[in-house]
Amino acid sequence: MSSGKEESDFSQLAADSLPIITLLTDFGVTDHFVASVKGVILSTNPRSHLVDITHDIPSQDIEAAAFTLLAVYKSFPTGTIHLAVVDPGVGSSRRAIAVRTRDQYFVGPDNGIFSYIYETEPAHTTVHVTNETFFNHPVSTTFHGRDIFGPVAAALSKGVSLDSFGPVVTDEMRLSSFQPQRRTTGALEGRILHIDRFGNCITNVTREALGNLSRYAVVINETRITSLRAFYSDELVNGKLFAVWGSAGFLEICVRNASAAELLNAKCGQAITIEENDVHL
Amino acid sequence: MSSGKEESDFSQLAADSLPIITLLTDFGVTDHFVASVKGVILSTNPRSHLVDITHDIPSQDIEAAAFTLLAVYKSFPTGTIHLAVVDPGVGSSRRAIAVRTRDQYFVGPDNGIFSYIYETEPAHTTVHVTNETFFNHPVSTTFHGRDIFGPVAAALSKGVSLDSFGPVVTDEMRLSSFQPQRRTTGALEGRILHIDRFGNCITNVTREALGNLSRYAVVINETRITSLRAFYSDELVNGKLFAVWGSAGFLEICVRNASAAELLNAKCGQAITIEENDVHL
Amino acid sequence: MSSGKEESDFSQLAADSLPIITLLTDFGVTDHFVASVKGVILSTNPRSHLVDITHDIPSQDIEAAAFTLLAVYKSFPTGTIHLAVVDPGVGSSRRAIAVRTRDQYFVGPDNGIFSYIYETEPAHTTVHVTNETFFNHPVSTTFHGRDIFGPVAAALSKGVSLDSFGPVVTDEMRLSSFQPQRRTTGALEGRILHIDRFGNCITNVTREALGNLSRYAVVINETRITSLRAFYSDELVNGKLFAVWGSAGFLEICVRNASAAELLNAKCGQAITIEENDVHL
Repeated sequence: MSSGKEESDFSQLAADSLPIITLLTDFGVTDHFVASVKGVILSTNPRSHLVDITHDIPSQDIEAAAFTLLAVYKSFPTGTIHLAVVDPGVGSSRRAIAVRTRDQYFVGPDNGIFSYIYETEPAHTTVHVTNETFFNHPVSTTFHGRDIFGPVAAALSKGVSLDSFGPVVTDEMRLSSFQPQRRTTGALEGRILHIDRFGNCITNVTREALGNLSRYAVVINETRITSLRAFYSDELVNGKLFAVWGSAGFLEICVRNASAAELLNAKCGQAITIEENDVHL
Repeated sequence: MSSGKEESDFSQLAADSLPIITLLTDFGVTDHFVASVKGVILSTNPRSHLVDITHDIPSQDIEAAAFTLLAVYKSFPTGTIHLAVVDPGVGSSRRAIAVRTRDQYFVGPDNGIFSYIYETEPAHTTVHVTNETFFNHPVSTTFHGRDIFGPVAAALSKGVSLDSFGPVVTDEMRLSSFQPQRRTTGALEGRILHIDRFGNCITNVTREALGNLSRYAVVINETRITSLRAFYSDELVNGKLFAVWGSAGFLEICVRNASAAELLNAKCGQAITIEENDVHL
Repeated sequence: MSSGKEESDFSQLAADSLPIITLLTDFGVTDHFVASVKGVILSTNPRSHLVDITHDIPSQDIEAAAFTLLAVYKSFPTGTIHLAVVDPGVGSSRRAIAVRTRDQYFVGPDNGIFSYIYETEPAHTTVHVTNETFFNHPVSTTFHGRDIFGPVAAALSKGVSLDSFGPVVTDEMRLSSFQPQRRTTGALEGRILHIDRFGNCITNVTREALGNLSRYAVVINETRITSLRAFYSDELVNGKLFAVWGSAGFLEICVRNASAAELLNAKCGQAITIEENDVHL
C-alpha cells in the first residue's frame, strides 16, 4: 500500500507536465474504437498525453496483454496511467478496477490483465470502480473502454484520487504466475510467455530464476538449445537456434534471419524446460 | 448555420488548450504519407494535438470513411478539427471543402465523405477551399492531404476563420442517406453500414428508426435473427447469431467467438430487412 | 557544417514549443518495442512531441528506411529530431550516430540508414555517440532503440548540444547513391526506390536527373511505358500503365485501380531504364 506522502508526489507531478495515459487493447486500428476512447479522454482532460502501447493484442487474449504490460511499464515515467482493455466480459458482472502501484496507475477490467503487475509490484492498491459520476453516460453494454475505463483514466490524469472511484478490493482476479517452477531435480519448468514479430520465443526464465544453475540447456519440443549469444547478430550461422538475454530480462530463443517459433513449431504458452548441461550454454 | 457567438467560443477554446486535429485516411501506415501530412501540420502549428482515427479505410472506400466519422465524431470535444482524406479524385476538379458544424470542423475532398455528418448536423456551413495562400507550395497533383487539406486544418487550428478559405457552398456531394427506409408493410429496409474487425455486422437501424416496432426479426441473406442480447458475452451458445445494440447506436449482428459476417456471408453495404416477429427479438 | 548562429536558433526553438521527435523502425506495432522507446523518451523529456513515421519497414531493410526518411523529412519543421532504428547489427561493434543537418537532427545506427539524407544535405555533421552518461542503464545488447537511440534523441530534445555525445566522424557508412546514372547513349539507368501500398512503383528519377530529355519512355521488365498523366484519376482506362510525377518528386509508375507492381512483376530495388522516345511521354 502507498503512503500519504507518495500520494502527494503524484499530484505534484500531474500539475507540472502533461499526464501520460497509455492505451493497450485488442481493438485493432481499422475501426473507430481506439479513437472513440481517445476522444472521450480528451473531452475530459484535453491536456492528457496519449501513447499507444499496442491495439493488436490477439482478440480476447488476456495473457498476451498481461505480458505486454509487464514488458513495457517500467519504461514509462512516474505518474503514468496505463489503460488496458482486453475485455471479453464487457457488459457482464466482471468488475472495473483501478490499480495504484508504487508510482503508476492501471485501469481496466478485473479479468487478470494486471496479474503480472501485481506479482512484480506487491505493494499496490486496487479499487473496484463503482462511482458512476465519472462515467460517460449513457453507459453502453458493449464499449466500456469509451464509457468507463477511458473516463476513469482521464479523471485520474486530472488528479482525482484513487479512493474516489470506489472501495478497495484485495481479491483481484489473477492468472497463474508468470514465474517458472523449480523441479526437485533442480531443472526449471517454464513456458513461452510471448512470440514477437521476428519469431523470437520469449521464455519466462529470468537470471534470478536460474539461481546458481550456470551450465544449462533450453529444451523446447524435444529440441535442445545449448548456445548462448550476447546479441542477435553474434550468431553467424543461419538455421542454428540460440538463446539471448532479451531486453525485458527474459531468456529468448532465436535463429538468425528466421523465425525460431516456426523452426520449433512453438506456440505461446507452451512448456519449456531448463536442464543442467555438460557445457556452459 | 452557426451564430457569431458560437464563432467566438471556438476561438476562445483554441487559445486555452492544444487544438485537436484528427486524421482519417486510406493511406495505410506502411508508407510515409501520414507522417508527411503530420509534418506539414506541425510546421504550420507546432502546438496542434494530432489524433489518428484510422489510416486503414479500404482503398478509395468513401462510404467506409463516412461511417467511421459518423461513429466517432461525437466522442471528441468542442473545437476538434477532423481531417479526412479518402480521395480517389485527387488532382481532378473535385472541390476541397471545409465544414463547420455546431461545434466541430471537417476538412477534406467534396466527394461525399462528410455525407453522414451533414445528415446528423443539418446546421452546418461548408466552404469551397480556394484561397491558395493557405496551401503548401508547390501543390502536387497527387497528394492534397499534404499540400491542401493538412495546411487548411492547421490554419483552422490557429484560429483562421472558415470564411477565409473560400466561398460558402450548399451543393456538397452527398452519398445516399444512411437511414433505413420504411416499407408500406411497416417493415424496415436497411443495410449493413460496417463490418468491424471482430466480424460484427453493424446495421443502419437505430432505436428511432424502429419506431413502435417492438417485436421484430433481422433478416440477412435469408437468415432470420430473432435473439436480442444485452451484451456480447450474454449469449453463451457458440454459433448462434444474435443482435445487440452497439456502441454507436446501431443494431449489430454478432456471434459468440466468431465472425457473424463470415457465417452470414455478409458484405458491407448489403441489404437487410427488419420484419415484424411473433416474439420479442 | 552548421554555423554557431544556427546552433543558437535551434536552442531557442526548443524553448518555445514542444520539440518533435519522429520514430521510424521495423519493430511493428504488435509488440511492446515502440512503446518502450516512447516511455524512455518521455521519462527523459516529458514535453517531447512524438510522431510515428512508420514501424512497418520490412524487417532489417535499411534501404526502405532510407527512402522513407528521404520522402518525409522535409515536411517536418526546423528542429525536428528523427529517430530511425532498423538495426540488424544491434549489440555488435556498429556505431551509434547522431547527425545534424542544416535544421534537423537524425539519430540511429551507422549502417547507411541516413545515406540519402547525407546526399541531399551535404552540409551535415555526424558524431559517433559514445558518451554513456546519456544512455539508459543497464544497456541491453538487443534493444538500443530503448537504451541508446531513444535516450539520445530525448537529450537532444532538451537542448543538449551535438558535440556532447561524442567525437565528429566523417566516414559514415553509406548505401550506393539513390540517383540514377546516365549512360553514354543519353539514357538513364535508374531503379525502383519504393513500392507503396497502392502498388505504385516509385522510381529514383527526378526532373533534374532527366535534364533535357523531354521525350522519353520508362522501361521496366521489358514493358515500355509511354504515357504521362497529371494525376492518378487522369487515366481513365483500367489496366493501362502510366507515369505521374509523385509527391516526393520522383517519377512513379501506376495503373488505374490496381497494382502496377503486380502487373509488372516489379520488385523494390530493381533496375529501370529511361530511354528516348518518338513521342512525348
